[in-house]
Amino acid sequence: MQMSKLISSVREAIEKTGLRDGMTISFHHHMRNGDFVLNMVLEQAAEMGIKDLTVNASSIFDIHEPIIEHIKNGVVTGLECNYMGGKVGKAISQGILEKPVIFRSHGGRAGDMENGSSKIDIAFLAAPCADNMGNCSGKYGPSACGSLGYAFSDAMHADKVVVLTDNLVPYPLKDTSINEGYVDYVVEVPQIGDPARIVSGTTKITRDPVGLRIAGLAAQVVKHSGYLKDGFSFQTGAGGASLAVAKYVEEMMEKENIKGSFCMGGITGYMVDMANKGYFDTILDVQCFDLKAIESIRENPKHQEISAMRYASPAAKSAAVDSLDVVILGATQVDVNFNVNVHTDSNGFIMGGSGGHCDTAAGSKLAIIVAPLIRARLPLIVDEVLCKSTPGETVDVVVTQRGIAVNPKQKELKEKLLKAGLPVKDIEELKQIAEDIAGVPNKIQTGDKVVAQVLYRDGTLLDTIKNVL
Amino acid sequence: MQMSKLISSVREAIEKTGLRDGMTISFHHHMRNGDFVLNMVLEQAAEMGIKDLTVNASSIFDIHEPIIEHIKNGVVTGLECNYMGGKVGKAISQGILEKPVIFRSHGGRAGDMENGSSKIDIAFLAAPCADNMGNCSGKYGPSACGSLGYAFSDAMHADKVVVLTDNLVPYPLKDTSINEGYVDYVVEVPQIGDPARIVSGTTKITRDPVGLRIAGLAAQVVKHSGYLKDGFSFQTGAGGASLAVAKYVEEMMEKENIKGSFCMGGITGYMVDMANKGYFDTILDVQCFDLKAIESIRENPKHQEISAMRYASPAAKSAAVDSLDVVILGATQVDVNFNVNVHTDSNGFIMGGSGGHCDTAAGSKLAIIVAPLIRARLPLIVDEVLCKSTPGETVDVVVTQRGIAVNPKQKELKEKLLKAGLPVKDIEELKQIAEDIAGVPNKIQTGDKVVAQVLYRDGTLLDTIKNVL
Repeated sequence: MQMSKLISSVREAIEKTGLRDGMTISFHHHMRNGDFVLNMVLEQAAEMGIKDLTVNASSIFDIHEPIIEHIKNGVVTGLECNYMGGKVGKAISQGILEKPVIFRSHGGRAGDMENGSSKIDIAFLAAPCADNMGNCSGKYGPSACGSLGYAFSDAMHADKVVVLTDNLVPYPLKDTSINEGYVDYVVEVPQIGDPARIVSGTTKITRDPVGLRIAGLAAQVVKHSGYLKDGFSFQTGAGGASLAVAKYVEEMMEKENIKGSFCMGGITGYMVDMANKGYFDTILDVQCFDLKAIESIRENPKHQEISAMRYASPAAKSAAVDSLDVVILGATQVDVNFNVNVHTDSNGFIMGGSGGHCDTAAGSKLAIIVAPLIRARLPLIVDEVLCKSTPGETVDVVVTQRGIAVNPKQKELKEKLLKAGLPVKDIEELKQIAEDIAGVPNKIQTGDKVVAQVLYRDGTLLDTIKNVL
Repeated sequence: MQMSKLISSVREAIEKTGLRDGMTISFHHHMRNGDFVLNMVLEQAAEMGIKDLTVNASSIFDIHEPIIEHIKNGVVTGLECNYMGGKVGKAISQGILEKPVIFRSHGGRAGDMENGSSKIDIAFLAAPCADNMGNCSGKYGPSACGSLGYAFSDAMHADKVVVLTDNLVPYPLKDTSINEGYVDYVVEVPQIGDPARIVSGTTKITRDPVGLRIAGLAAQVVKHSGYLKDGFSFQTGAGGASLAVAKYVEEMMEKENIKGSFCMGGITGYMVDMANKGYFDTILDVQCFDLKAIESIRENPKHQEISAMRYASPAAKSAAVDSLDVVILGATQVDVNFNVNVHTDSNGFIMGGSGGHCDTAAGSKLAIIVAPLIRARLPLIVDEVLCKSTPGETVDVVVTQRGIAVNPKQKELKEKLLKAGLPVKDIEELKQIAEDIAGVPNKIQTGDKVVAQVLYRDGTLLDTIKNVL
């Protein structure tokens, strides 16, 4: 008997796993805005007349816009994610879903699955390569995405697990990330995603002078914080300004001959280059952002795939974020208590989510928010954020082009930055500067309907998001 | 705050984890007969006056002889393992432990931890390298053992996990097998084991003519079974006769230009060479047996570490054994119903255990037992085995130097072997030949005390072992 878990279609997967009304299905987001799998499964479920599904996706992107119709038709009645792009976000903010969306962080989602508070009936894994028993990896194939970090929890904790792949390889897959022990069925499909949108070709450093000014100041904060020394560990985002911080940090490391320990997070070619040049000993990778990162995770033994659990979960006995020195993070709003909003824009529409924001802020020794003081004619700093995505207690410094605010809890750090001659200002002062330029913004009119609950990484309710009128 | 899980001693680990009377502690056996960790922990527990412990060790070797005193002193009152060497086995067979030993298979142990029927309070992991947060691996360091395959279940399911290492490296360990998310404490100790006894320098093919004759016949069985073709997968042991089978199989693969898929099991340099020569595409390794295997798992991307769960657990949705074509296994006794004993010698004394025996027999398409027809003047084949370690239903062929017995269930296979001119005999006939030479053995006198229960891989009771008078 030649065993195989290969079945012929998404329809057969839905039938064999027993998907029915009321169940929770999960997806991971390594295919990012090129993902075909979430839409494929929902379309099939809708065709089969299944209703009342809860979708738990580590992230929802604009490509997942068809979910709006499925919500309107009652196919999807619950939505849980760590991040939501603007298209679906806007519809949610308009109140199309009866139950509030549940937002978690990357670490919190893994933790809630681990501790059983988030129950998944069926996980659908987009796998850039897999064998017929379900051993799979993101490293190889036309839809390669590199790390499958966020999919581990789904695989390990869902009742049933279906692997969808467009690159079926002979058993056993050689460099397995998620193994057959967790997988029930394998479906070969023509394409799990659009390679051009799964990853960026290259991620580029910003040329915007405001972005460069902010990055330069942030790098100075890193330098004078005292953490930039041998053994330094670092996380930064894939945005142009975040990469500029990395560039300036690299220049300082070169100058002072500093050898870091690890860099982490969504990984870009820029971080790969820094590791290859010897500035970091190891790369811990929960998600690849560009082609160079994918090539590196495939070939460079210093570049390790890690699960969301290992990356950031508070349910783990420790996570890598707990050993992180410095993280560079963004914000749409920061309030005078250093609380950060990354869930909504300044008008209250959902267009983001925590991802690893609150996880890394909580775990790292130094969490630096970088953002322009004014965006779309609206001040960054407000009296109270529209959504508390990351608690102010975990945020250490806010860097804008017009000055740096240090959390009052960090007295010593503030002294160091002042001594270094950096433009440290009170956060109220920064707020005033912004309002002097852009005016005091009108108060956002939100409705009474709670359209989203934001859970903190430990599962407690951090905030709610109301509909926008 | 620089986080660290590093504590100063085994004593402190016992205190911090709250080890107390009545608890179950676990150990893995990759240090084999060079392991210092089990003895170290028990000695400390005894010194601290802790009693009534159950020890769940994946295997007990002769080096663990001090456990006999701990049993006599009431420090250890329960023992669970997959294999037990002759020294401790003899004492158990003499009835020193009140409660029966619980024997499992390698897959069954992992499965019982996974499904919660085997509960571990504190796992002590011998780690050839680790960082201060508990990321660890068996691949590097003076006590390198290669794969840590059997330790994954302990790490993932024990309430508390203590890593003991003699090779503390900077955070984060680069090539992590078991990650910090599962680890509570790390203890640096002078030595976790005796390198000379952890692995063999090299494992060698037998020169014994009887062994070679058996191996030659077994290889013929493989050849004529029909499984020896492209995609062939294979497991064999580290014993000299098992390696001889591998050698003959390799010669046939070379001659017929066959490209196998994977080899598996405890891995020896011989299997590594076969993979490197292209006869196998991949090595799935739950345990390394010699230095060459350790070097290979460290450096060869074709050589993958797998957990016991992935290797053989019936609680996994599938395990690698389920895709295995052919396994070569040993036996101390085989009965006329093809049941195999690997737990006791012919006198009834415990000196072994299933390990992966019943797992691979159940999973593989062709399970071949190789053993001399007479050993220490006693016939291999008996009316009823003293202990049913592997059920006859899962055993396909028994190969001895005097002939080959095929399980009557395998009619087609028997035809093929007969057609090939192999010396196929009825198992009763083989038994008669042995008795004609060695005489009918005296019936073993066992007592009334059950000294061990043998659980099958699915957790059901397969047999019991009585004390020897």
